[in-house]
Amino acid sequence: MSKLYVWVNDSLISADEAQLNITDLAVQRGYGIFDFFKTIDGKPVFLEDHLDRFFRSAVLMRLHISQTRDEIRGKIIQLIEKNNISDSGVKTILTGGFSPDGFNIAEPNLVITQQGFQIPRTMSEHGVSVITHEYQRQFSNAKTLDYLQAIWLQPVLKEKKADDVLYNSNGLIRECPRANFFIVTKDDQVLTPESDMLKGVSRKQVLEISAGMYDTEARDVTMEELRNAKEAFITSTTKNILPVVQVDGRVFGDGKPGKVTRALAEKYNRMIYGS
Amino acid sequence: MSKLYVWVNDSLISADEAQLNITDLAVQRGYGIFDFFKTIDGKPVFLEDHLDRFFRSAVLMRLHISQTRDEIRGKIIQLIEKNNISDSGVKTILTGGFSPDGFNIAEPNLVITQQGFQIPRTMSEHGVSVITHEYQRQFSNAKTLDYLQAIWLQPVLKEKKADDVLYNSNGLIRECPRANFFIVTKDDQVLTPESDMLKGVSRKQVLEISAGMYDTEARDVTMEELRNAKEAFITSTTKNILPVVQVDGRVFGDGKPGKVTRALAEKYNRMIYGS
Repeated sequence: MSKLYVWVNDSLISADEAQLNITDLAVQRGYGIFDFFKTIDGKPVFLEDHLDRFFRSAVLMRLHISQTRDEIRGKIIQLIEKNNISDSGVKTILTGGFSPDGFNIAEPNLVITQQGFQIPRTMSEHGVSVITHEYQRQFSNAKTLDYLQAIWLQPVLKEKKADDVLYNSNGLIRECPRANFFIVTKDDQVLTPESDMLKGVSRKQVLEISAGMYDTEARDVTMEELRNAKEAFITSTTKNILPVVQVDGRVFGDGKPGKVTRALAEKYNRMIYGS
Repeated sequence: MSKLYVWVNDSLISADEAQLNITDLAVQRGYGIFDFFKTIDGKPVFLEDHLDRFFRSAVLMRLHISQTRDEIRGKIIQLIEKNNISDSGVKTILTGGFSPDGFNIAEPNLVITQQGFQIPRTMSEHGVSVITHEYQRQFSNAKTLDYLQAIWLQPVLKEKKADDVLYNSNGLIRECPRANFFIVTKDDQVLTPESDMLKGVSRKQVLEISAGMYDTEARDVTMEELRNAKEAFITSTTKNILPVVQVDGRVFGDGKPGKVTRALAEKYNRMIYGS
């Protein structure tokens, strides 16, 4: 693999030289936000939506972005040209900055990285298995750096042979650590949570597509509704629409991706990859 | 101020050169633990208790410490000798390490820093004002890097002219972000929470002292008991015993530190500073 470049504030440097002093509030206190989008054939996908959310997260977490939106977009485009990777993920991190007292927010540090990856351009025929876990992210409307719970749960997932975890709280389903969750009811109604979770960019696009094909609603979804669902799927930048065939050991139907999930995935993949 | 040294893994380097690559899981996902003790006249205070907790936090958060306890203690002693600061705080951070996928724990990075500070050797006669906030730390038995809530609340504290915040959940008081909380009842009973909070080293020492002087108990303490309390104080490495004279605008007694708080602080300060 050729050398990758990253931005650390205004320096475009080699990834192995990309460092932050340990006084940064991310190292000291886990404080920061980020966003993440993919490129397909070298082109950013839903970049403006991701920039919207990046700025929104920063405001929610009281981080002041000294660069304008155009400047950040410009850095991203420059990075993509420099690294010249066709299919990739681009992560933009904003930390709490070099805090003199290690407790109050300083001038944030901006880090932009890119990594190549290959995402299947068609829906997985196998789907994934999910377990539920009672938890609700703090500052759930912001994409913060806080993944303590998710990372801590990784060995539990391996032990239970699960691919992902679905957080739930107060009897309502919320989100996966890095993805949104949808269910399809027995009446082909498409439902996804609306509160106390991060509103994904893929979720937004899938909601729009779904609204043109099915009765679709973003609202509180109970654990009971999940148990009675006919199909389920998750959405994210790296997973597109990924069928969920099993939750907590309960298999949906015949254990294969359902027809509503399939129809939405076909339409979604056509939209982002072309026909 | 003379140049300060810090440890980054096995390198004892100047603080301004102390950096971590941005692939570290603290920068990527806010993942890590730490501990913090003070030195008085160049001597570590309750070092073994802090090492106990550092190792306990690491186990709770699934972080593997490759150094032995003796090696870490040795590095700390060497750092204190090198920096030669009489009164200081020493912070030992263990991050999730350079994670190839940015999501699974790698070989942790160990960072040890020291900063000079002056703590009053006698109890504050003014005390502090505290507001309550409904919140409970995740992984509350571990001293993680997660201070999202605490840092986010800083401007709220300033606006409300409060010095600190007391977290509470399910009607029970828990802890301040960096300190434990005690109340004194009308019958001179000394109470401090026991569950869903971090058990401080200062708290442990104060509990021992208090048990020899008053009816003392570590158990669930309700918000109602806080409202009916006669005195309150917080304990921490940097605050020792600090009287709380006001909670949510309600002033304790005549607004001056109470007699039980005063008696405990005198004994505690004599223990750590000598007579």
